[in-house]
Amino acid sequence: MHFTQKDILDMASLSAEEITHILDTAQGMKEISLRPVKKVPTLRGKTLILFFHEASTRTKTSFDIAGKRLSADVIALAKSGSSMAKGESLLDTVKTLEAMHPDVVVMRHGTSGAAQYIAGHLKSPVINAGDGKHAHPTQALLDMMTIRERKGRLAGLKVAIIGDIAHSRVARSNMEGLIRMGAEVRVAGPPTMIPKGVEEVYGVKVFSAVEGALEGADVVMMLRIQKERMENILFASEREYARTFGLSTGRLALAHPDALVLHPGPMNRGVEITDEVADGHHSVILDQVENGVALRMALFYLLAGGMRHADED
Amino acid sequence: MHFTQKDILDMASLSAEEITHILDTAQGMKEISLRPVKKVPTLRGKTLILFFHEASTRTKTSFDIAGKRLSADVIALAKSGSSMAKGESLLDTVKTLEAMHPDVVVMRHGTSGAAQYIAGHLKSPVINAGDGKHAHPTQALLDMMTIRERKGRLAGLKVAIIGDIAHSRVARSNMEGLIRMGAEVRVAGPPTMIPKGVEEVYGVKVFSAVEGALEGADVVMMLRIQKERMENILFASEREYARTFGLSTGRLALAHPDALVLHPGPMNRGVEITDEVADGHHSVILDQVENGVALRMALFYLLAGGMRHADED
Amino acid sequence: MHFTQKDILDMASLSAEEITHILDTAQGMKEISLRPVKKVPTLRGKTLILFFHEASTRTKTSFDIAGKRLSADVIALAKSGSSMAKGESLLDTVKTLEAMHPDVVVMRHGTSGAAQYIAGHLKSPVINAGDGKHAHPTQALLDMMTIRERKGRLAGLKVAIIGDIAHSRVARSNMEGLIRMGAEVRVAGPPTMIPKGVEEVYGVKVFSAVEGALEGADVVMMLRIQKERMENILFASEREYARTFGLSTGRLALAHPDALVLHPGPMNRGVEITDEVADGHHSVILDQVENGVALRMALFYLLAGGMRHADED
Repeated sequence: MHFTQKDILDMASLSAEEITHILDTAQGMKEISLRPVKKVPTLRGKTLILFFHEASTRTKTSFDIAGKRLSADVIALAKSGSSMAKGESLLDTVKTLEAMHPDVVVMRHGTSGAAQYIAGHLKSPVINAGDGKHAHPTQALLDMMTIRERKGRLAGLKVAIIGDIAHSRVARSNMEGLIRMGAEVRVAGPPTMIPKGVEEVYGVKVFSAVEGALEGADVVMMLRIQKERMENILFASEREYARTFGLSTGRLALAHPDALVLHPGPMNRGVEITDEVADGHHSVILDQVENGVALRMALFYLLAGGMRHADED
Repeated sequence: MHFTQKDILDMASLSAEEITHILDTAQGMKEISLRPVKKVPTLRGKTLILFFHEASTRTKTSFDIAGKRLSADVIALAKSGSSMAKGESLLDTVKTLEAMHPDVVVMRHGTSGAAQYIAGHLKSPVINAGDGKHAHPTQALLDMMTIRERKGRLAGLKVAIIGDIAHSRVARSNMEGLIRMGAEVRVAGPPTMIPKGVEEVYGVKVFSAVEGALEGADVVMMLRIQKERMENILFASEREYARTFGLSTGRLALAHPDALVLHPGPMNRGVEITDEVADGHHSVILDQVENGVALRMALFYLLAGGMRHADED
Repeated sequence: MHFTQKDILDMASLSAEEITHILDTAQGMKEISLRPVKKVPTLRGKTLILFFHEASTRTKTSFDIAGKRLSADVIALAKSGSSMAKGESLLDTVKTLEAMHPDVVVMRHGTSGAAQYIAGHLKSPVINAGDGKHAHPTQALLDMMTIRERKGRLAGLKVAIIGDIAHSRVARSNMEGLIRMGAEVRVAGPPTMIPKGVEEVYGVKVFSAVEGALEGADVVMMLRIQKERMENILFASEREYARTFGLSTGRLALAHPDALVLHPGPMNRGVEITDEVADGHHSVILDQVENGVALRMALFYLLAGGMRHADED
C-alpha cells in the first residue's frame, strides 16, 4: 500500500485500510526494539522536531526513542524556554521551526485543533501528540495495536471505555478508530462526563452503570480521572469514585474471561483502577507502552522515510 | 584561507576577509540541509556544548540542528538544573564543562561580556550566542549571509536598522559587521533608544524620523521592541509605537523597490512590523532562520573541524 | 574478570576486585576522550535513560557525554515535565520507562533508598546517580580513580574527609569504598555533622579538629557545605565556618607535601576552600570531572555492553 497522508492529526482522517497499514508497519518495527542493537539506519539524516507545550513523560520519551532507533536526529523543544514565552504566535514559532527543514514536527498543545491549524500552514508532516480535549491519535493507534496483537483482530470486539469520556482525547480517538475498524464500543462514566449525542456522533453505546458496559467485554479501557474535576463537580471523595466507576477484580469478572485491561497512564491507583487489576494478568498496560515506541517508529517511517526515499537508505 | 580565530565573540574581532570566508563556508553548508539525507560525518566524535542562560527557541534549536547535521554530539544545558543555581561561579561551571573535553562551547548569557570573560579562561573555542546588550555575532553573520545571498554583495548597500538600537545586541553586531564589509548603515528609533555617539563609534548615520532612514534603502532590518521598555518609558501604547516606528507597506514604499526586510524574531506583529510586510514578498525573515543553521554549521566546522582534522573525516 | 553486578547502587555492594576492575576499565576509557574523534561504536543501538529528579550539571552532563562517546542513544528526563507531576508513583513511572527497553537506567532522586527500591523491581541495570543522603557511588568511584591515578594505589593512603559528613552521600560512598580498598580514612567536621557511631560502622577515625585529620594526609577531600544548614544550625557566618573548617594554604601545609585536594563540586569558594587551594597545584578537582566521564563510560560498558554482546560490536 502507498501511504499518502501528509499528517496524522486524528483518527477520523484515517481509513480502515490506512489504520491496518500503520498497525502492520508498527508490528514489523517492534522487532527492532528487541534486538541487542536496537537501531536501524532508515531515517539517518532526517530531522524530527518534538514540540511539547504540555508536560509528558511517556509520550515524549516514546517519540524520542522511536526517532533515535531509526537513526534520525531528534530535536526536543519545550514551551518554557521558547519564543512563545516572549509573545510570539504559535504559527510564527512553528514556521520558524519549519525553516530549519525538519522532516516531521510532532506537536502536543493544550488547545483543541492546534495541530490541525499548524498542519494546514506547514509543508512538513505534523503528528498530533495530543491537542486539548480533541485527539490523541498515536495513543489510539498503540491501543489498537495492543488489542489486535492479543486478539488477532479488532472487528467484532466489544470494547468498554470507562471514565471521563467528555474531556478525554484518548477516548475520542479510540472511539473513532475502533468504530472505523468494526469494533463495538461501549462507554460508561458519570453522567456529566458523557458527552451529549455521543451515540449518534460516534456510533457507540452509552451505559449509565459501569456493569452494563463491562458485561462480556473483550477489552476494558480505563481512563485517567483528573482529581480536580472529580472533587469539585462530582464526587465527595476518590473512594466514592472508585466504588462507582473504578475497575476492581470483582467488577472485571463481568467481562469476558480473557478480557484485556488497558490504561493510557499515568494511573491513579486505587481510584479508577485497583492495584490488583493494574498488575494482574488481564492488564496489558506495559504492552501499550512498549507498542507505543514501535507505533511511533512506524509513523515516522511512513511520513518521513516511506517509499519516496527508500533508495537513499 | 586558513581560519585562525579561536572564538567567535563579536563582529569587531573579525576581519572582512574572515567574514567573507565564514559566509562562503556557510553557503556551502546550506546545501546539506536541502538533501534527503541531511547529514555529513564531518564532526563525528566531536562534542559541542550548548550552555544557555536565557530562554531561546530559534537560536538554541539552530545550533542543535547544525551540530547534529555535522554528526557531532550535542549536549544542551540550561541554567535551571545547573550547579549555578547552587551558587557556583560561572567560571567554575564552565571550567567543569571544559574538563569533559568539549570541542566548542556555545554560550548565551544575560550579562554583557560574559562570553569574552569565559573565552579568556578556556582553551576550548567559545561561540557567543548572545551576551546581554553586547553582541550576537551569529545573528549578524546570518543576516549578512541572507543579504549577500539575495543582493550578491554587502559593500555599498544601504541598510536601515530601525528600533531600539541602544539595547539591541543584534543591532550592535550588525552595525559592526556591515560597516566592516563596506555597507552604509542608517539607524532610526525613539531618541532614548539611540545610543549617544553611535555615529562616531560605529560610523553609522542617525535619522530622527524613520522615513529618512528608509529612503532608498536596499535592506530594512526591524528590531524587536520589548514591551516593558516601550510602555514604561516611551509610548502610551503599542499602537503609538507602530504609528511612529513600525514598518508598514506604505512606509516600506520609501525604500528601494527590491528592498529586503529582515527581523531577528520573535516578531511583535502589529507593533514594529505589520502582517502585510512580515508575510510579504520583500520579507526574508524565514530565509534568515534557514541560513542560521548553515551559518552555525560553518562556524562549528571552522572552529572544531577545519583543516586541522581534515584527514580524519 | 567477568563483571556480574546488575546494578551500581552503592559502594558497599562492590568487592575490592570489582572496584579495581571498574577503575581499570575506566582508565582505558579515558583515552577515548583525548582522541580527535572522541567516539567508539561500543554501545551503538543501546538506549540509556537518565532520570534526574534533582538538579545537576556535572553529573547529568557527565553521564550524557559518556553515553554519547560510546555511541549509545541517551534519553534525558527531568521530574518537571514528567508524569510524576500528575501524581504517578515512582515505580509506575520507571516501569513505564522499562517497557521502552532501555539498556541502563541512571537515576538521581532526593529520597535515600530510591535507586535500590527501583532496581529491585526492574530487569534493566540501574545506576544510582545520587539518592538523598544515602549514596553516590559514581562520585566515589571517580574520586578513587583520580587518587589511584596520581598515587598509584589506594591501600595504605591516609584520606581526610572534611565537612558535613552526616548529610553527605559523597562522604558515605567514599568512606565505604576507600575502607574497602584498604585506605585509612579520617573525618572531621562540626560535631553535629559527624554521624554517631561512624567509627564503628565504617571503620574511620573521627577528629574533632580539622588539624588532626589533615596531619600527614595523602589526600584531602573537602565537602560542599550547604548554606542553609550552616547558617541555621551552626555558625554565625560563612567566615566563621571557613576559619574553623575551611581548607587554606596554611592548613594544607599540615598534610603530606604531595597531598591531593579533591572536591566534588560545586564549590563554595571562600567557605570550605580558599581560591588559592582550589586553583593550586595540589588540586585535582578538574581531574575528578575529567575522570567522571571515563568512569561512567566504564560503567555503561560493563552493565550494557560487556562481554555478553562483545560479538555484536
